[in-house]
Amino acid sequence: MSRLLLNCDIGESFGNWTLGLDAEVMPFIDCANVACGFHAGDPSIMRKTVSLAFKHGVQVGAHPAYQDLQGFGRRSMAYTPQEIQDLLHYQIGALDGICRAQGGRVSYVKPHGAMYNDMMAKPAQLRAVIQAVAAYDASLPLMLMATRDNSAAQALGDEYGVTLWFEAFADRAYDSAGHLVSRQLPGAVHHDPEKIIQQALIIARGEHLVASDGSPLHLQANTLCVHGDNASSVAAVQRIREALTPA
Amino acid sequence: MSRLLLNCDIGESFGNWTLGLDAEVMPFIDCANVACGFHAGDPSIMRKTVSLAFKHGVQVGAHPAYQDLQGFGRRSMAYTPQEIQDLLHYQIGALDGICRAQGGRVSYVKPHGAMYNDMMAKPAQLRAVIQAVAAYDASLPLMLMATRDNSAAQALGDEYGVTLWFEAFADRAYDSAGHLVSRQLPGAVHHDPEKIIQQALIIARGEHLVASDGSPLHLQANTLCVHGDNASSVAAVQRIREALTPA
Amino acid sequence: MSRLLLNCDIGESFGNWTLGLDAEVMPFIDCANVACGFHAGDPSIMRKTVSLAFKHGVQVGAHPAYQDLQGFGRRSMAYTPQEIQDLLHYQIGALDGICRAQGGRVSYVKPHGAMYNDMMAKPAQLRAVIQAVAAYDASLPLMLMATRDNSAAQALGDEYGVTLWFEAFADRAYDSAGHLVSRQLPGAVHHDPEKIIQQALIIARGEHLVASDGSPLHLQANTLCVHGDNASSVAAVQRIREALTPA
Amino acid sequence: MSRLLLNCDIGESFGNWTLGLDAEVMPFIDCANVACGFHAGDPSIMRKTVSLAFKHGVQVGAHPAYQDLQGFGRRSMAYTPQEIQDLLHYQIGALDGICRAQGGRVSYVKPHGAMYNDMMAKPAQLRAVIQAVAAYDASLPLMLMATRDNSAAQALGDEYGVTLWFEAFADRAYDSAGHLVSRQLPGAVHHDPEKIIQQALIIARGEHLVASDGSPLHLQANTLCVHGDNASSVAAVQRIREALTPA
Repeated sequence: MSRLLLNCDIGESFGNWTLGLDAEVMPFIDCANVACGFHAGDPSIMRKTVSLAFKHGVQVGAHPAYQDLQGFGRRSMAYTPQEIQDLLHYQIGALDGICRAQGGRVSYVKPHGAMYNDMMAKPAQLRAVIQAVAAYDASLPLMLMATRDNSAAQALGDEYGVTLWFEAFADRAYDSAGHLVSRQLPGAVHHDPEKIIQQALIIARGEHLVASDGSPLHLQANTLCVHGDNASSVAAVQRIREALTPA
Repeated sequence: MSRLLLNCDIGESFGNWTLGLDAEVMPFIDCANVACGFHAGDPSIMRKTVSLAFKHGVQVGAHPAYQDLQGFGRRSMAYTPQEIQDLLHYQIGALDGICRAQGGRVSYVKPHGAMYNDMMAKPAQLRAVIQAVAAYDASLPLMLMATRDNSAAQALGDEYGVTLWFEAFADRAYDSAGHLVSRQLPGAVHHDPEKIIQQALIIARGEHLVASDGSPLHLQANTLCVHGDNASSVAAVQRIREALTPA
Repeated sequence: MSRLLLNCDIGESFGNWTLGLDAEVMPFIDCANVACGFHAGDPSIMRKTVSLAFKHGVQVGAHPAYQDLQGFGRRSMAYTPQEIQDLLHYQIGALDGICRAQGGRVSYVKPHGAMYNDMMAKPAQLRAVIQAVAAYDASLPLMLMATRDNSAAQALGDEYGVTLWFEAFADRAYDSAGHLVSRQLPGAVHHDPEKIIQQALIIARGEHLVASDGSPLHLQANTLCVHGDNASSVAAVQRIREALTPA
Repeated sequence: MSRLLLNCDIGESFGNWTLGLDAEVMPFIDCANVACGFHAGDPSIMRKTVSLAFKHGVQVGAHPAYQDLQGFGRRSMAYTPQEIQDLLHYQIGALDGICRAQGGRVSYVKPHGAMYNDMMAKPAQLRAVIQAVAAYDASLPLMLMATRDNSAAQALGDEYGVTLWFEAFADRAYDSAGHLVSRQLPGAVHHDPEKIIQQALIIARGEHLVASDGSPLHLQANTLCVHGDNASSVAAVQRIREALTPA
């Protein structure tokens, strides 16, 4: 069983508002997707978040977003590809600045929310994101969604010399194309911890999931997206970590 | 006559709003203090500004500010020293991200507006700024105000191993302590180009200015702050550049 | 010739940044579409703008927008209909607050930029805007785009008891459906003052324009959108005003 | 025992972030100080908050602040008196817009955080706030801090015809001038519910408190500031409400 990294959105507090159990989930993850101030996070939150990640030996990833604090970066916005690159350079750089001040570095990039969804839906935006990472530092991997067929994305990554880390979800149902079943539909989100652990193990072992239409689905994934929103999701992360750790 | 760098606030447009004649003044300056998005500038403006500076071989300095776009960073705000450091790391990093994407780097730091004034007025804030620069990259010089006696600031810079670049003004009257005469007072700002050129030459040669009380004032300065706001200030910069250039 | 109101975007400065020749164009218009702080304008700019409008007896209209200062409200954003209503109530109220402090009131509503375009493109959003105006104060007219057939919009306005003011453009070419020809295409924008005046007169008289495909186009319009961006557009507004004023 | 209104900061969530137990505390208060988007609150949060207040027959007060979302309006900022007035008109108007859309109105004004503190510390700012309320709607009371001697504030209120509602605190120690003892000092905040109830009753009955130096202190108060931050503060509000309600 190859190593499956656990990545988690972290540092999504802002000013006086707290969100997520960052301190509780940090011990169990490999990669912290740290908000960069555009959908969440502010310079002081980012400093504390990076400090916590470094203390636990967790890799810090930039989690850049559209500039929409009120919408938490979840509303699609009509940016041009060039503007997407500018947003990325600004936010990756800002987080890297916080990291450098603590003797570390940003280790990878994972766009957030609507920026992530639009990147998966629009090839021109995926290209812009990959170009942006390549221009900033081509040694930084880009995290994106594993689907049934990663080859188009992989070709773009290869074109710019950017490593891609494909991520999968243990708590979501997939359709036969390897896309997440919409949250509007029944059964889209797994709540049973046993089912979540099982799906994590299937993905880690490279076995086949069962898609929503009953067909087998193989996801080639480097990392699993986990959640530190509340106590039960943190407990699930801990169990996934234990299940994935060789005895 | 030692070399006196010309520094200028640049990149202070925002979104749809244009401010300053950046393209016109860039050929005549050495150091561009580039706004980092908190008082002015946005990721796309910053990309264009950095590109223009690099094209002219002008050093890019981070020009961080309090987070007050409406007030253009000119209103004092009650930040803690730790928050000041966080603001600096975020903004220096963001601009550095834009620079790295173009194959360059931030070369120095000059706080903007109220952050600059508060730094000059409050030793705890100056210490915070110097600490922040040291933690980010101790090889980056910090630009601050030359006064009659730079020794206290210099001692702080030495303590953290940060080079200080003291700046003077050719178009402002000084009092005997080497502080700028308040704009509220008559004669505070020089409008006569000849007077401005003369003051620039005096500073460059290390000669004595005449303070507002008639006393001689010697300013030890590494750089002169010039302005690209409008055509006449750009013309003044060109003339200062010519006057300072050895035949 | 029925009276054709001249409306103009006004108050689009922000903080330290100035945009538009508000003072120059104000004497020639009837209706000032005043930015409400989300794409441009800030509380102090709004106070000065309202004061100027009231001094000239110009009606103040709320010009609300998506919350995107950097994009000047020109980027479409995925708001829900309920969120659109909330945005409108907040911004109309804010401007009304500024007006009330000067003894006046907001007189009408005209959404800005992408909010305007999305309202014209999506019936659910037009309904949300009309509902929002009705809930705030059904006596306020809503300004929107005149097209070949205004009946669907009119039916919605009637449903909620909201008066609609249809606007036309004197400086833009129309296609046969009464939509503006895209700025990407040649001939989309008229630059010849004579042509602009002629189109204004045709619209004011209720005569037929010639659409881009040569077909006749009748626009039922209550108001003409004019521009105060620069000296030549202000001159055009003055000439339109003179042409429309009965001798 | 005259009626002592219970006022509480409400609607301090923002976008995706939740703060305070608004629904839990609302049944026990008279006056909801609703955040207006500058330190907390957004148009959609404000709509929900106003709806909740109206459902419970609670008066909606505007709770305007300096524009500092990250600092939650708690950092002093160097605004001019005119700018303070502009901030107030914008924010009162915005909340009033939300209220009008629901068939109601803003009923009073209470500045938030640093704007409140600066108003109490600087007579020029108190004057600006009172002027702003008078210009908006002189029938709206202004809530401010009761101290040993309210006469200077009262004289200003009288000058502009603005009713003042003085507020006191049941959970804070006072010094002999009737100012709150700094939170830095021991005993500044009461945690014992019995002590809080007792202080509420003393204030309601117009009896004398014991100041931190042992001297008797009489506070002339119209309203008591209570808190809905967490379950225990909500429980305290419920007990204060019961204690103040005539049998």
